[in-house]
Amino acid sequence: MASSLLTRQLAISLQQNLRLAAPGSRYVSKTATKTVSEFEYDAPSMKTAVPGPKSQCIIIKLLNNVGAVHFFCNYEESRGNYLVDVDGNRMLDVYTQISSIPIGDKSFLCESFSQSAFVNRPALGILPPENFPDKLFESLLSIAPSGMSRVQTMACGSCSNENAFKSMFIWYRNKERGYASPSEQEVGTCMINQSPGCPDLSILSFMGAFHGRTMGCLAATHSKAIHKLDIPSFDWPIAPFPKLQYPLEEFVRENAQEEARCLEEVEDLIVKWRQKGRPVAGIVIEPIQAEGGDNHASPDFFSKLRNIARKHGCAFHVDEVQTGGGTTGKFWAHEHWGLDDPADVVSFSKKLLTGGYYHRDELQPDKPYRIFNTWMGDPSKNLFLLEVLNVIRRENLLEEVTRSGKALLQGLYALQTQYPHILSRARGQGTFCAIDACNDATRDSIMLKARNKGLFMGSCGEKTIRFRPALVFKEYHVHQLLNILNDILAEHK
Amino acid sequence: MASSLLTRQLAISLQQNLRLAAPGSRYVSKTATKTVSEFEYDAPSMKTAVPGPKSQCIIIKLLNNVGAVHFFCNYEESRGNYLVDVDGNRMLDVYTQISSIPIGDKSFLCESFSQSAFVNRPALGILPPENFPDKLFESLLSIAPSGMSRVQTMACGSCSNENAFKSMFIWYRNKERGYASPSEQEVGTCMINQSPGCPDLSILSFMGAFHGRTMGCLAATHSKAIHKLDIPSFDWPIAPFPKLQYPLEEFVRENAQEEARCLEEVEDLIVKWRQKGRPVAGIVIEPIQAEGGDNHASPDFFSKLRNIARKHGCAFHVDEVQTGGGTTGKFWAHEHWGLDDPADVVSFSKKLLTGGYYHRDELQPDKPYRIFNTWMGDPSKNLFLLEVLNVIRRENLLEEVTRSGKALLQGLYALQTQYPHILSRARGQGTFCAIDACNDATRDSIMLKARNKGLFMGSCGEKTIRFRPALVFKEYHVHQLLNILNDILAEHK
Repeated sequence: MASSLLTRQLAISLQQNLRLAAPGSRYVSKTATKTVSEFEYDAPSMKTAVPGPKSQCIIIKLLNNVGAVHFFCNYEESRGNYLVDVDGNRMLDVYTQISSIPIGDKSFLCESFSQSAFVNRPALGILPPENFPDKLFESLLSIAPSGMSRVQTMACGSCSNENAFKSMFIWYRNKERGYASPSEQEVGTCMINQSPGCPDLSILSFMGAFHGRTMGCLAATHSKAIHKLDIPSFDWPIAPFPKLQYPLEEFVRENAQEEARCLEEVEDLIVKWRQKGRPVAGIVIEPIQAEGGDNHASPDFFSKLRNIARKHGCAFHVDEVQTGGGTTGKFWAHEHWGLDDPADVVSFSKKLLTGGYYHRDELQPDKPYRIFNTWMGDPSKNLFLLEVLNVIRRENLLEEVTRSGKALLQGLYALQTQYPHILSRARGQGTFCAIDACNDATRDSIMLKARNKGLFMGSCGEKTIRFRPALVFKEYHVHQLLNILNDILAEHK
Repeated sequence: MASSLLTRQLAISLQQNLRLAAPGSRYVSKTATKTVSEFEYDAPSMKTAVPGPKSQCIIIKLLNNVGAVHFFCNYEESRGNYLVDVDGNRMLDVYTQISSIPIGDKSFLCESFSQSAFVNRPALGILPPENFPDKLFESLLSIAPSGMSRVQTMACGSCSNENAFKSMFIWYRNKERGYASPSEQEVGTCMINQSPGCPDLSILSFMGAFHGRTMGCLAATHSKAIHKLDIPSFDWPIAPFPKLQYPLEEFVRENAQEEARCLEEVEDLIVKWRQKGRPVAGIVIEPIQAEGGDNHASPDFFSKLRNIARKHGCAFHVDEVQTGGGTTGKFWAHEHWGLDDPADVVSFSKKLLTGGYYHRDELQPDKPYRIFNTWMGDPSKNLFLLEVLNVIRRENLLEEVTRSGKALLQGLYALQTQYPHILSRARGQGTFCAIDACNDATRDSIMLKARNKGLFMGSCGEKTIRFRPALVFKEYHVHQLLNILNDILAEHK
């Protein structure tokens, strides 16, 4: 039987790859003991109507469900062409996770250890595994920002922001039409990209912002020309982000004026774009502009910006793709603002291992398939995140970050005092720190020399060095870093 | 030492989760034998300048490299805060895969089996693992469509199409400016979303098409209003996709006329949009429109369309996200057209387990960071794909698909002959088959009844049932499917 060979060899080769693979190594086949008849079933076998009682019970836990989920699946029991649901119904599957499964369900690989979450990637929006709601509660929802009990997972940061934008547009238009059904004209025109179905709405973003590189995100990104050149974009308003002067304590008045100027411009733009017929549905901002040069603003600035958004009926989207996950000393950088009601949408990716966004209840789409795609994230990433969160809590890593971050920033202050012709504007929150070189050539030279001495750093903005260590970065590592930097600066001509 | 606990418990809990996890189960801690000192290093340790000779040697293999890759990494040897490269250089890492690693490199988890590819997710565009070029050659590049030797991986189908669109825009503008550097005006205007830096270019798509749900892809998608309603879009041209009449052999002349009408409209739109000042940089099409209702066209139609694209200087992008991976009986559906030069870009996702797109050499961006994001795919998916491809080849699964597909289509023909008041337009290639019901209510009712009898199918278009089995779908399964469908139709009032 041809398929016995198939199953056997795949099982062996994958297990070997997972257990023994060294880089570039290939598996070696061994005699197998299993045949396909031990893996695949003979026929469908139904115990209940579908969705069965167990599926219906689990679905209640899935706060984000708006009708797309068919039933919950038992991927451990699913084999070959047969999909098994949590009620024990076994179905011949000719839809295969929206056509995304090449050679059938692969749970037969999971005999001695459960690789099911890794080899069987479900279409989460319609056929989630049984433990999906529980794992969401234990992982992403256990660290939900203030005011948010809903989360939508996505594959990467750009997809997270794209879908966050879409949920703000949908929310805004539903408000505008008084939560009535869309008109025939809207339904018709949207199919051909025309308004009113595809409305002339906008997202207000900030100069220096980075929100991703897909076409919606890119229209809100303004950090470097190389990201945007030659790509068509939207006519959306762009506000100035405060350019603070350092050291902060010497420029209190100037910086307050600068922030007030930027906020005034935000309100002007909202009014202007409304008059233009392209109302602002949402404002998107990073708590610290990273790619744009590690630009900070005060909690007062963000608090007032949040109020402006509310006043003008715009959703307020805080993009924590780079700042989220504990590196500022709090799990979310916007928690440093001290507001009870800081955001309507908070997006994440990177350190959270999966992309996605949290949102208020009212940002939930009103119908299934409005926010949707085949995979909608990857549940194996949620499993890893769960373990990572356990470690962060058990080890009080956020306190560790605060401690290391303080040492790092103090060290950077000392270096810029010692080398004022080379370094300036040391700044940071937690270990999310940065310092400017006098120009880009000097910055690049310092970074290359550091790399050859065993210190790997990042750059951002025009002449900034950014520090983005992991949460296990201790004071001990801070001193290694400072020693290497000091050596290079001492040699610097 | 706090961090010994960290490492130990993470190692135990993750291994337990991977090996023993049942849905909803939680790990139980055990006494650990390792401390962090056995995992993390004491300090940086440098053997060569970076990138070292080994990195420089491997980089030659990476055909897509345009300068972003820093060096190649040995993730098996990387530990905690220390990143180890393939030349054995050990660096203190304060950039952490563009800030995407929460608790340091996790290779210490990989003692008894190599989970490195799963727990350490690198920023592939700048710090790929050593085996990345080899694995690309063995997996994705071993099945590259005709004329294409380059592939760019991405996290999902939408990101693949978004970046394919971007590469076509960049290619088109580089051609327009004679491969000269962009002007100061272009560099300046692109930062604020204005032309000429963000040019008024367009992508021509087809009515009924589905290319994804991020804002660029969505502007080329025209399958269902629910996907597009309330989302701002671009003024891009939309051509009619042929509406063929079935059975094909009875409507040869009518169908040829219909295809000619659509092609004429394509040329008219290209001219019209050029005159409008929004030239068409690329044409995107699915070999079979899936979400839009499983709409087919003839090889002659695609051949002529490809010629129109060439004649007008537009890139030709074949979206194989749903059709790729073998389900039509060939690895790529567009191989059925029999052309030597079928496409400039071919995108994929779903059955390929990773998203991405192939492209001709000339579609390679001229500078680093033009096509880029943090993860750029996921190398663990490439490892799975490699094993899946081995099975497909060893078991001649494409022949199997052709055989099962023939049986399935014959069966559907028989059913529509028997139940002409309910079913019509049976069609398909390989097992990528579909049949229409008389209306959407009947379609939905048949699908629900089938599910309760153990047959799980998909829907598309207005009243179509789509069949998307895995490549291990045999004639035996075809008969199960037809028996269940027949029972339902016999009972149908």
